[in-house]
Amino acid sequence: MSTDPTTARYSVEGLTALSESLLHEAGIEKAHARAMTARMIDGDLLGHRTHGLAFLPTYLDRIEGGHIGSGGELETLHDDGATAAWRANRLPGAWVMGEATDLLLDRITDRAVATVTVADCSHIGCLQSYLLPFTERGLLVTLTATNPGVASVAAPGGTRGVITSNPIAMGIPTRADPILIDQCTSVGSNALFEGYAVRGERLPGKWLVGADGIPTDDPTVLRADPPGTIQSLGQTDFGYKGFGFGLMSEALSIALPGYGRRSRPDRFGQGVFLQVLDPGRFAGSDTFLDEIDHLVGSVRDDPGAAGATIRLPGERALAARRQQIRDGVVIGAEVLARLTPRANRSSTPLPTPL
Amino acid sequence: MSTDPTTARYSVEGLTALSESLLHEAGIEKAHARAMTARMIDGDLLGHRTHGLAFLPTYLDRIEGGHIGSGGELETLHDDGATAAWRANRLPGAWVMGEATDLLLDRITDRAVATVTVADCSHIGCLQSYLLPFTERGLLVTLTATNPGVASVAAPGGTRGVITSNPIAMGIPTRADPILIDQCTSVGSNALFEGYAVRGERLPGKWLVGADGIPTDDPTVLRADPPGTIQSLGQTDFGYKGFGFGLMSEALSIALPGYGRRSRPDRFGQGVFLQVLDPGRFAGSDTFLDEIDHLVGSVRDDPGAAGATIRLPGERALAARRQQIRDGVVIGAEVLARLTPRANRSSTPLPTPL
Repeated sequence: MSTDPTTARYSVEGLTALSESLLHEAGIEKAHARAMTARMIDGDLLGHRTHGLAFLPTYLDRIEGGHIGSGGELETLHDDGATAAWRANRLPGAWVMGEATDLLLDRITDRAVATVTVADCSHIGCLQSYLLPFTERGLLVTLTATNPGVASVAAPGGTRGVITSNPIAMGIPTRADPILIDQCTSVGSNALFEGYAVRGERLPGKWLVGADGIPTDDPTVLRADPPGTIQSLGQTDFGYKGFGFGLMSEALSIALPGYGRRSRPDRFGQGVFLQVLDPGRFAGSDTFLDEIDHLVGSVRDDPGAAGATIRLPGERALAARRQQIRDGVVIGAEVLARLTPRANRSSTPLPTPL
Repeated sequence: MSTDPTTARYSVEGLTALSESLLHEAGIEKAHARAMTARMIDGDLLGHRTHGLAFLPTYLDRIEGGHIGSGGELETLHDDGATAAWRANRLPGAWVMGEATDLLLDRITDRAVATVTVADCSHIGCLQSYLLPFTERGLLVTLTATNPGVASVAAPGGTRGVITSNPIAMGIPTRADPILIDQCTSVGSNALFEGYAVRGERLPGKWLVGADGIPTDDPTVLRADPPGTIQSLGQTDFGYKGFGFGLMSEALSIALPGYGRRSRPDRFGQGVFLQVLDPGRFAGSDTFLDEIDHLVGSVRDDPGAAGATIRLPGERALAARRQQIRDGVVIGAEVLARLTPRANRSSTPLPTPL
């Protein structure tokens, strides 16, 4: 048992029991609480601590504020077999994504492409966590999600946030570990810069733009009035390309599902685009895997620059997941501290470190 | 009539007659020559001079070298109505893309999503030029294409090219001009850096990486032995994200169509992924356009940083297109010089400047 609060590890079972219990006691249906918990813990397992159980206190606050629903129904706007468009009326994002995953795994059995869009679900969390059920079956999957209530990224040359960090993810099966891409289209997420601001640190580079339009390494400009914005991927020289990718996400996950910035929503809903493709119904699964495995091999064969470690997207996350399933999940002391008062009022105690 | 060779303008008709004639005389079927010509001239009209008639001398060389076919047939690997996978056996990319566009415009009439992949067609040219037939009908379109015979982009930390500049494009309809995104996933295209090398200039930033893995502003490293590589979008700090987008393109346009790096192809073929989505079969066309027009409006309302001009993707290209359709197409003197010997042997003369 480690008593160092920065490296203390907890069992998945103990964390799961606590999270499910706190969510259910806050009014969330058990099936919804299970899905939310599984995805948060998977975020921690994959090493994305900002997208793991760190969300639980926030989610509990949002449930109390009425921003996360439970008990309503998914509304179908369109369904032609290959493509479904849902309106989720602020149901828990992780549960809605589980329903969408089940639907797509069923629909893809007799076609090459199946697609679901979701309007107005609550926060879905770590995108990477939704890719494995598809890649494990040899399927290629694309996922993008956006929060229309947050506007922290300006057009290149602009000073006003018009989109946000708009992540795009893709799971690519290989004959070994899948490639699990999950990245925002700005240089970093809102949470990344909030972390720098909380710690009182400057950024390593001029990754933000002040409200005056001038690039800056000061993370507090995002909290200023008027606020600054986050640079698009590519930064000052090539940010128009990152902004282009952000617009792609916006078209797929806001305009297509039909829930967006025009309705001036609060900060707690998301739109989602999820599409699965079966390589077996294009040029064939073996051909697909031959090509991808060749690409993976050429990356592995690269000796690399001096001192550099070459990794494929998802490689570090999958290694962290295996290690933490075996040894227990590292949960930050500050997350436990935020959960302690709630656990003390709950029927389920805080888990003890392993 | 301008006699300044840097601003001389030519009629679309004159350029079209010359290009179609030279291609046909080189052995390309008339329908193929028409498609190739239309797309090259559209590249010039949109202002992408590296992706316009500048390709014609290169294409003529490739035809002579047997790298561009004509007269063969498209082979269907899969077709379930919603999704078709073709092998194009090095048929002209522009003609194959025209066939794919016609197929998708037909197939999308009674479904929400329609997809075509193409293996082993010849070079398709300017991606942006293929988006308008879809956006003009209110359809959302995604296009990515890759050349598996070129490897100029390394994994982050790496020193060996494993993918190339892998462009991704999307056409987004609005109630006014469409948003036409077309961008590579590296900081720039191979042609951009070749231009700097030919002119003997240094780059404005360390956009390349030498074979030693060290970032550099020397464009000649791409020609060195061993060669350097192009940084992925996001450069040194965030290039892993640009490389992630490059891998997405690779999965969709090489592995899925089934024609790729594993077969060690020559430098003249491409794989393509083209998908069209009908917003009318998601949350509805009006809802889609309401959201996109709202986003466009919020970009237009931004006063911008001092001295900055804010543009949406495609805005400058569409303005150039309108102006050049009206006033004639600017063709570089060096392009005309390369075509002159061929025109002198041809039945169709070089057009005279307007």
